Amino acid sequence: MKPRLSREDLWIERWTRVLRPSRLAGLRHGLGHDCAVLSSPSKNLDLVLKTDAVVEGVHFLRSTPAALVGRKALARALSDLAAAGATPRAALVTAGCPDKKSAVRLQSIYHGLAQAARRWRVAVVGGETVRTRQLLLSVSLLGTVPRGSSPHRGGARPGHLLFVTGKLGGSWPRRHLTFSPRLKEGQWLARKKIPSAMMDLSDGLGADLPRLARMSRVGFRIDPEKLPLHPGVTARQAISLGEDYELLLAVPKNKAARLRKAWPFSTRLTEIGVCLPLRSGFHTGGLPLQGYDHLR
Amino acid sequence: MKPRLSREDLWIERWTRVLRPSRLAGLRHGLGHDCAVLSSPSKNLDLVLKTDAVVEGVHFLRSTPAALVGRKALARALSDLAAAGATPRAALVTAGCPDKKSAVRLQSIYHGLAQAARRWRVAVVGGETVRTRQLLLSVSLLGTVPRGSSPHRGGARPGHLLFVTGKLGGSWPRRHLTFSPRLKEGQWLARKKIPSAMMDLSDGLGADLPRLARMSRVGFRIDPEKLPLHPGVTARQAISLGEDYELLLAVPKNKAARLRKAWPFSTRLTEIGVCLPLRSGFHTGGLPLQGYDHLR
Repeated sequence: MKPRLSREDLWIERWTRVLRPSRLAGLRHGLGHDCAVLSSPSKNLDLVLKTDAVVEGVHFLRSTPAALVGRKALARALSDLAAAGATPRAALVTAGCPDKKSAVRLQSIYHGLAQAARRWRVAVVGGETVRTRQLLLSVSLLGTVPRGSSPHRGGARPGHLLFVTGKLGGSWPRRHLTFSPRLKEGQWLARKKIPSAMMDLSDGLGADLPRLARMSRVGFRIDPEKLPLHPGVTARQAISLGEDYELLLAVPKNKAARLRKAWPFSTRLTEIGVCLPLRSGFHTGGLPLQGYDHLR
Repeated sequence: MKPRLSREDLWIERWTRVLRPSRLAGLRHGLGHDCAVLSSPSKNLDLVLKTDAVVEGVHFLRSTPAALVGRKALARALSDLAAAGATPRAALVTAGCPDKKSAVRLQSIYHGLAQAARRWRVAVVGGETVRTRQLLLSVSLLGTVPRGSSPHRGGARPGHLLFVTGKLGGSWPRRHLTFSPRLKEGQWLARKKIPSAMMDLSDGLGADLPRLARMSRVGFRIDPEKLPLHPGVTARQAISLGEDYELLLAVPKNKAARLRKAWPFSTRLTEIGVCLPLRSGFHTGGLPLQGYDHLR
């Protein structure tokens, strides 16, 4: 009998051709095998894991250029790694494919994803394909961070100052597709051990800041007039629209001066408020505390 | 302003309550943070990565008991780790949720997943929720394997014998929900360095064996009469139906006798054929080389 590839194997072959070869130190085997296997990093590093999906009709539209869909799928997950101060290493990609047309589109999506992977030095080492009713991509990332230095959402204390990188709002129709995850900024902040808590802003400050506050068991007060806004965006929009992919961080007062002085990036860094005792509650100067809610 | 949880955060809180606390040596932080962070394992271990999804209407039905859906979502991914000889450590879970009814169902699905995670000692350390048109779960796993010992699909050579664990076929309507991934068998085989190639059977021998053969650049001949079948299943059905979640392995002839003698499990182990030179092609004694094709 002649070897014949299944429809699925044919498409996977086409999609993943642009991803080869995966250059990753310590990669033993990747694409085409049941699992990806790589050597453990040094004990001086911690492992960082994250998974994030983009779904047609939610995170992108049928009219969104395919290459930008692939770019966004990777960049979104990288934004979370940035908030953990991590350096990305390897990615697994799950493609949900509804029909032939989407299978064709996935070729260009993988092309955009491969470009982004080269840019941010991530090796795509595995993944899989499933039949779904709408096009979707789910990206799982493995990164590394110097041992014990990864910030999380739970370390903010009353009196710590709140900062954001970049500007907020106005992410649609374009910036949510073309943003650059704040990897260098996040890595620098973690290495300097400056933030007591850090996260990335994906659902809007109005949804995400309360998450950080709850994990840290603090209240907060933000000053709407201090919010760094993209042109044409109101503070009310900026707090609720989501997809900023900026970093939100809490910083102990005694480190804030050092942070302002040593900040080596052209990326803007803005103090927007302060953490309060939990019982003081959440204060926004009248802005609604509401961001994007995936299950509303 | 009073702290108020978004609909999404409320559901995540409900779903993930059954997953806490995650017991995992070296876990620095997990659920509720942007990323999960854990200490690197010993340099004597390699890292093993895998992602696998189950989708309503494809891998389970609306009528499938919810706890078994959660169990299957984890067990499927574990079956791939078994084929890599790996010990599972940590999981990330992505839930795609279309509506309120599915959100309620996901509570029971997470319950089944949590039970399975305890049974197979996997810590669920993170994940996320997205709005999708059909219910789905995607599980990403991190495992470990003794350095350099993980089998893959590419090491089979002409003359190596082909074996499968367990019996094939008849996975629907029930066994695809209740199977146990061959973790111990896979770990033992890897530790003993017996297989030259190994994979798990998820799309049926007719689809999966050609994949192993292609990665190894060999042909093969299998003997339909030797296939270990579940009662009431024909060889033709067994080769094409899929969801066996058994291990398929190639073994050099000089290790086969040792394998048969030392095999310490009650799980059946059956020789089903032999690898041939690539130019000899694929021979099945007349059975069609066709398994489940997700994109047919």
